[in-house]
Amino acid sequence: MQVASASRAAEPPLEGLTVIDAGTTIAGPMAASFLSDFGAEVIKIELPEQGDPTRQWAPKKDGVSLWWKVSGRNKKLITLNLSKPKGQELLKKLVLDADIIIENFRPGTMERWNVGYQDLAGVNPGIVMVRISGFGQDGPYSHRPGYGTIAEAMSGIPSFTGFPDKPPALSAFPLADAVAGLFGAMGAMFAIYHRDVKGTGEGQYVDVSLYEPLFRLVESFVIAFDQLGFVKQRRGNRMEESSPRNAYETSDEAWVAVSASSQRTFERLAHAIGRPELANDPRFANNPSRVDNAAELDAIIARWFRQFCLGDCMEILKQHDVVAGPIYDIQRIFQDPHYEARDDIIEVEDAELGTVRMQNVIPKMSKTPGEVKFAGLALGEHNHEIYVERLGLSREEIERLEAEGII
Amino acid sequence: MQVASASRAAEPPLEGLTVIDAGTTIAGPMAASFLSDFGAEVIKIELPEQGDPTRQWAPKKDGVSLWWKVSGRNKKLITLNLSKPKGQELLKKLVLDADIIIENFRPGTMERWNVGYQDLAGVNPGIVMVRISGFGQDGPYSHRPGYGTIAEAMSGIPSFTGFPDKPPALSAFPLADAVAGLFGAMGAMFAIYHRDVKGTGEGQYVDVSLYEPLFRLVESFVIAFDQLGFVKQRRGNRMEESSPRNAYETSDEAWVAVSASSQRTFERLAHAIGRPELANDPRFANNPSRVDNAAELDAIIARWFRQFCLGDCMEILKQHDVVAGPIYDIQRIFQDPHYEARDDIIEVEDAELGTVRMQNVIPKMSKTPGEVKFAGLALGEHNHEIYVERLGLSREEIERLEAEGII
Repeated sequence: MQVASASRAAEPPLEGLTVIDAGTTIAGPMAASFLSDFGAEVIKIELPEQGDPTRQWAPKKDGVSLWWKVSGRNKKLITLNLSKPKGQELLKKLVLDADIIIENFRPGTMERWNVGYQDLAGVNPGIVMVRISGFGQDGPYSHRPGYGTIAEAMSGIPSFTGFPDKPPALSAFPLADAVAGLFGAMGAMFAIYHRDVKGTGEGQYVDVSLYEPLFRLVESFVIAFDQLGFVKQRRGNRMEESSPRNAYETSDEAWVAVSASSQRTFERLAHAIGRPELANDPRFANNPSRVDNAAELDAIIARWFRQFCLGDCMEILKQHDVVAGPIYDIQRIFQDPHYEARDDIIEVEDAELGTVRMQNVIPKMSKTPGEVKFAGLALGEHNHEIYVERLGLSREEIERLEAEGII
Repeated sequence: MQVASASRAAEPPLEGLTVIDAGTTIAGPMAASFLSDFGAEVIKIELPEQGDPTRQWAPKKDGVSLWWKVSGRNKKLITLNLSKPKGQELLKKLVLDADIIIENFRPGTMERWNVGYQDLAGVNPGIVMVRISGFGQDGPYSHRPGYGTIAEAMSGIPSFTGFPDKPPALSAFPLADAVAGLFGAMGAMFAIYHRDVKGTGEGQYVDVSLYEPLFRLVESFVIAFDQLGFVKQRRGNRMEESSPRNAYETSDEAWVAVSASSQRTFERLAHAIGRPELANDPRFANNPSRVDNAAELDAIIARWFRQFCLGDCMEILKQHDVVAGPIYDIQRIFQDPHYEARDDIIEVEDAELGTVRMQNVIPKMSKTPGEVKFAGLALGEHNHEIYVERLGLSREEIERLEAEGII
């Protein structure tokens, strides 16, 4: 493959960009990860002794957090206590030569520590500060504790996710944090474009909440209520705009997702399940009729799926070019030839755990691909490189800072 | 507010960047929207007569698609049939002065039309091409039809979303497309950084599938299986790593999401529900014990919530600084003072529907904020501006192209 061979020689696209990851747990560190996946130098700040909370998170192997191995990957690690004046001074020294700083403390915290946006811009007017928080930097809730779960709840999405006879379904992973991290990384690049490509030299801050990114993604959500009074409801795996769209169980207790609401895709599905006449049945003749009669249609389709095992179902559906796919768990993902061909799972050497496997970088860039160089390292691993080699601190200063709990 | 007043004067960050949106429906157009929200000039290509499929999507008002009003916002609209040689010629003329082109056809389609990456790079070596598809540009499934629902199913996420006694829960909006759109816009900015800030002048293509972006977001998913054989399961609104974390129903049938697994947050919750002794109960004394006894703990908490209406619950929880939030539907979002203070919902004038309300741009940039200038316009609205004023076509050429179904 041309792409892969070209990739070896080229450097990642963001090489030369320096990012300070002053975030903790998920959202801020994930924004930083999207940049470090593509070659930005990310210097991650952790509290002395404690380190990032994800270092303590389950799941663990031999006492080592697996989450940390991924969220800390590709990052240079220094310890630094920002609540102490000497720690604040050191941060400002780092900011002098940095392009981006990412943080996700409660609004006001960085200001209390004398390292708010104004303080840092005073040191380096070109600095781009990505500030992630539950509710954003202003507004009446801005000082409330905001975790991803709460932000997701208030984004509106869980109210229409899941089944009507069950509670609203929350994500079982930090979706709000992850999407906020994406908006944070993207917003940082917009600010860098303004600063460097347009040549203004001007930095700024980027205010990312956890609830607004998810709210933004559901494009028809606001306007449908505004114009029609439409309140989106939980409908299980059906959709109010299209049918059939559902997950169906096979004879071997696997599930297959099907999306076949356009006329052509529905006709292909009808053929695949041996019921071509359904496309002419007035109840199912077009998408609006199918939506009105979704329960009947789903019963017919579900009956077909229950006759066959997953492999047979997929074989028949593929022959008819039906838009369908199995609901994978991680076990099936490890067995899937397409995941394998795309190198979606990579092996990374790790001093603590040996070889670990994790997700590759996303997306795939043809000339300057990103790469994973190493998994999450030990607390303070790069203290010497950053404090001594880069900032020029002496051995005595380092020892004093360590003794005082600054680094 | 300083931010808002500064925002009026400054131009959006991406002004000067030209993007061709050759995508259809969701993923490609959404990537383009994230850029046009921040001032990039986005020229959207639609099939003559038919237009983008979202123009026909529900929900509609007076026959006008509401979805289109959002997904088409801020975009200059031209008609162009890429399957015809003259259409391909016109695209190449547009590419000559463009920075980015975004497409989401099945892999191979653009090549068949002589406008694949090699063809376009031949015209403009600096062009950045964002290619979004169900399964990516290579690998055994690359030519399969890939809709967001299928990609989501194969990303692994639905397998652990929802309740164990119900089918896996798929999203009720195009989540995979939206997240792919984010990775596409972010990847485009990485490529622009490589081209313009590092000054290589070199374009490239960015290969974004619909399944990999979601797969990437669940950081512990791969490594937990690799190292521990752990297969993430559906647990309703509980999490395997933390407790309590759930949604609880109030006396007035509202739902509240609670995340209180750290010791301090749990103690605050225990106080709020009048059961401070729970923090010393060996079953609930620390997070691992709480995870083991999650059903018992949830029963105690759920009993408390059922005694009060939503307003009373939230008032008590707020007094104790508990990390909790109501599960909002769109009606509650419209009434929320924080959404209002943050200008999350804006009014946009529209020739067809009068004033329409939709989501504001995300994130908030302090010096160069994005903005929504107009909602989705009519098919071919900018044909004159682009074809006549920019490309210099004559009135006769335009008429001939129209007659031939090229534009």
